[in-house]
Amino acid sequence: MIQPTPIPTHWYNITADLPVPPPPHLHPGTREPVTPEDLAALFPSELIAQEAATEQYIEIPEPIREAYATWRPAPLIRAYEFERALGTPARIYVKYEGVSPVGSHKTNTAVAQAYYNSIDGVTKLTTETGAGQWGSALAFACAKFDIELDVWQVAASYRTKPYRRHLIETYGAKVHPSPSPLTETGRKLLAEDPDTPGSLGIAVSEAIEIAASEPNTRYALGSVLNHVVLHQTVIGQEAVEQLRNAGEENADIVFGCAGGGSNLAGLAFPFIREVLHGRAKTRVIAVEPAACPSITQGEYRYDHGDLAGFTPLLKMHTLGQDFIPDPIHAGGLRYHGMAPMLSHTVELGYVTGQAIDQREAFAAGVLFARTQGIVPAPEAAHAIAAAAEYARGLTKPEVIVIGLSGHGQLDLPAYQAYLDGDLEATS
Amino acid sequence: MIQPTPIPTHWYNITADLPVPPPPHLHPGTREPVTPEDLAALFPSELIAQEAATEQYIEIPEPIREAYATWRPAPLIRAYEFERALGTPARIYVKYEGVSPVGSHKTNTAVAQAYYNSIDGVTKLTTETGAGQWGSALAFACAKFDIELDVWQVAASYRTKPYRRHLIETYGAKVHPSPSPLTETGRKLLAEDPDTPGSLGIAVSEAIEIAASEPNTRYALGSVLNHVVLHQTVIGQEAVEQLRNAGEENADIVFGCAGGGSNLAGLAFPFIREVLHGRAKTRVIAVEPAACPSITQGEYRYDHGDLAGFTPLLKMHTLGQDFIPDPIHAGGLRYHGMAPMLSHTVELGYVTGQAIDQREAFAAGVLFARTQGIVPAPEAAHAIAAAAEYARGLTKPEVIVIGLSGHGQLDLPAYQAYLDGDLEATS
Repeated sequence: MIQPTPIPTHWYNITADLPVPPPPHLHPGTREPVTPEDLAALFPSELIAQEAATEQYIEIPEPIREAYATWRPAPLIRAYEFERALGTPARIYVKYEGVSPVGSHKTNTAVAQAYYNSIDGVTKLTTETGAGQWGSALAFACAKFDIELDVWQVAASYRTKPYRRHLIETYGAKVHPSPSPLTETGRKLLAEDPDTPGSLGIAVSEAIEIAASEPNTRYALGSVLNHVVLHQTVIGQEAVEQLRNAGEENADIVFGCAGGGSNLAGLAFPFIREVLHGRAKTRVIAVEPAACPSITQGEYRYDHGDLAGFTPLLKMHTLGQDFIPDPIHAGGLRYHGMAPMLSHTVELGYVTGQAIDQREAFAAGVLFARTQGIVPAPEAAHAIAAAAEYARGLTKPEVIVIGLSGHGQLDLPAYQAYLDGDLEATS
Repeated sequence: MIQPTPIPTHWYNITADLPVPPPPHLHPGTREPVTPEDLAALFPSELIAQEAATEQYIEIPEPIREAYATWRPAPLIRAYEFERALGTPARIYVKYEGVSPVGSHKTNTAVAQAYYNSIDGVTKLTTETGAGQWGSALAFACAKFDIELDVWQVAASYRTKPYRRHLIETYGAKVHPSPSPLTETGRKLLAEDPDTPGSLGIAVSEAIEIAASEPNTRYALGSVLNHVVLHQTVIGQEAVEQLRNAGEENADIVFGCAGGGSNLAGLAFPFIREVLHGRAKTRVIAVEPAACPSITQGEYRYDHGDLAGFTPLLKMHTLGQDFIPDPIHAGGLRYHGMAPMLSHTVELGYVTGQAIDQREAFAAGVLFARTQGIVPAPEAAHAIAAAAEYARGLTKPEVIVIGLSGHGQLDLPAYQAYLDGDLEATS
């Protein structure tokens, strides 16, 4: 067993260490850098401050650390049997976030966002969710900090993937299929097509519409933004320390899946910190699905985070705000853009993108389950597949770290479809 | 955060410390104490030895400890927010087994049983499963130790609860609905009623029938027997140490759910060890469902572990081998008997039974989820309900330990039914 480290006391802000500051977000109307006032209708003051923070470390308030203590520090596991199955000389370590109450890394930012909203007197939050990872994480956090929560879930998922909806409701939050008759955006779309499957972009627009129109209500986003990435750095800080407890000086290479980017950035930025300070030469691979390849196929430019264009303009790798990815099972990777902070580190050369097709991801997920026991979330299986391919090609030992962002117990029908040969390569 | 302890190096055998030895198992034909030879067709030699072991500690072989290291030590969590919600002066600690790869404590014995079978040259195992907790745990373990596995799953669960079946198949094992056309028992029952929902007793009989008839094939049981209880004592050994790391001398009272009894016994026996050695006065409550109250309503006598009478006669609290409990959602508690070792400690006065109705269990489960974040397995929710009732009644501080045997993420439709008011008190 690798000795655990203490829960980090601070979040790590890579902005302070980068040679070039990240480009600012722009106001969607004026195309000028957004001001804190511009964001005040959507986010509480402390999160707005974190969005533009320049200090290297930001202290984690005690109530958030108490919440983290329910599942953190998350384990770093040496994947001996997976190594043997691959026939690799590599030493492979897996940082496992599936031990959180909802089974994914999303809780790391959910409890922080709920806390900061609660101390600002916010009594209700709104958000969107696809398959439900983020919706359930925020529902857990809102129950903890006594905040009402309304979640707009993409209608196709609402109808076909009920488990995470049940989870959200068990935590006491409300779930609406999106588009819904509760918003202008939703009513317009339902009038055009009452059976529309919806999209994440539509759900964001509905959640923002309600947040902007009701008193003491704010909106919460589960990835992409700087403050979200910041909160996720507890993952990488723990992993850097745990790796040393395991007797390794440094990682040679880090693999993580990247949808909105916060999972990979949270794992990788503390490793890149070691690189920036000359203490390591770790490479970082952002693994994205072939069906939604924003880093490897997208443009690096200003774009909106949502379909309707309500969000600030973000400088990021994007496939375009109206890009609709194939319905792959890794719902958490079906996002047209990429966290601006992660895109920035790609541009600076610290992170490289790699696209993996869905069947390759499930094949790696099944091998990982059969050797290590943990069934990975389909999102994380993409990172495992890329790491496995790399490890198989090695002729001398290297230290590989894989981000295992969550378990796949609520994605088992997708595994069954893969085993039954019913899965398309990209959909 | 409570500092974790090392993974135990030994299992604790309470037989060595009890003032009276437990009654032996009897041969179903002769009613004489079973011999190792009687059991050789079903179990590997080391497990047969453990079934009758008298030494106080039995060393855990290194390959099993390596497997345990994937998820052990399991966390002990101080449930601050649950305490506040209950308005109790108690300090409540929760020992959480849901971090295992399949989400329950069943893996603790599954990896041990698969390992001992593998070193005996066994190449195939058979077993039964209800909702699938045990079947998925053994499938994980068999994948780890390269053993083929066939699982007979109660037909009603096979049809209506597909997720754990998918999990079993993801690990590479085969699942058959029980009754199946593969056995004489099954063919006979299917001829009478092709649509029969099946039962655990039937599934046991089918698994034993195949194990006894195929070469290098043995049978594995997920609860009840002494060797299963023994393996589960890693839970309680860790909890006793972790409680001390948290600054508590001892637990005043321990609550755990009891179906076949191995979860509760595994948690409680190391606490009872402290009582037997005069170091504590801890009481232990075995919480069973009102729909299947073997301790509180059953008789203490010799009975079979299965419907067909293939198993040895076991001295235990039983509702009768042909008792069919209502279809409550806590499938893991729907067993007519109780682990003989646990029944023996009940008779000696170290453990007390308590029955909880299903709606009360779900109410406690929802409160626990909304305060602590973890959605408990419906089985574990019974223990939480009993502990909550006790804690609410306290006027001065006590230390309460609750066994949280698994998470309820694959039981979310049952939570939804509870929230929607569609749940019967006992079915």
